[in-house]
Amino acid sequence: MPDILHRVGIKSPSTSAVYAALTTVEGLAGWWTIDSQGENTIGGELRFRFGAAGGFDMKVLELDEGTGVLWQVVDGPAEWIGTRISFALKQEGDYAIVLFKHADWREPVEFMHHCSTKWATFLMSLKSLIEIGKGTPHPDDITIDNWK
Amino acid sequence: MPDILHRVGIKSPSTSAVYAALTTVEGLAGWWTIDSQGENTIGGELRFRFGAAGGFDMKVLELDEGTGVLWQVVDGPAEWIGTRISFALKQEGDYAIVLFKHADWREPVEFMHHCSTKWATFLMSLKSLIEIGKGTPHPDDITIDNWK
Repeated sequence: MPDILHRVGIKSPSTSAVYAALTTVEGLAGWWTIDSQGENTIGGELRFRFGAAGGFDMKVLELDEGTGVLWQVVDGPAEWIGTRISFALKQEGDYAIVLFKHADWREPVEFMHHCSTKWATFLMSLKSLIEIGKGTPHPDDITIDNWK
Repeated sequence: MPDILHRVGIKSPSTSAVYAALTTVEGLAGWWTIDSQGENTIGGELRFRFGAAGGFDMKVLELDEGTGVLWQVVDGPAEWIGTRISFALKQEGDYAIVLFKHADWREPVEFMHHCSTKWATFLMSLKSLIEIGKGTPHPDDITIDNWK
């Protein structure tokens, strides 16, 4: 099944700040959407909302301190339900590397193309949050097309 | 085989300016790399260079006025050789939509993750070129990680 893949490198002496930005509601609100809520525990649910556009509910499947996070989408657009989103972290010199995967799309639909580009802009937002202290979470996210 | 997919929407009354930016050396130099050369004819080759990082040679397989372009990579990094890159264009209201695909990667290697994110930034550069008259081609391209 098709996957969305990305890699960003974030100037940071370790992966711990990036891990915190992926595993706390405050961190998630700093780069993805300011309307981030929920329980960041294994089996817990995280809820991300994007105003009138709706949002996503994720079940937390894995939390590996400093090295990775795995979520499964349990509610949201039909194309997303059942897909899995992971962030694998490692340190390379001055950079905390994020290997991102949004896996198990059923078909490479046009919406998947949109989400791939949009994820890239949100990962660059995560990079900005850590490097300069400010990301571009929704509603300040970058418009990529007529779907926002 | 895994593919990189993206979608951008560019504010433009038709797809013709975007098509020109994909099919002329001047256009390509405005958003991907200033060192773009070659023959934009079917069967011709385009050469893109990124300074010390090397570059890519593409054979032009298809040119469909206003609706699409297909290239095959004939020289460059081993992972790229034989892969195909397409830009499908269509108009939706005020937006020229670009559906991008870099297809037929043999394996979803870490370099593919990097290229996916990097393509997103270059497609946003294409969007800027058309919308505000200025892109961010190499060497002014956006750094995404420790691989540049």
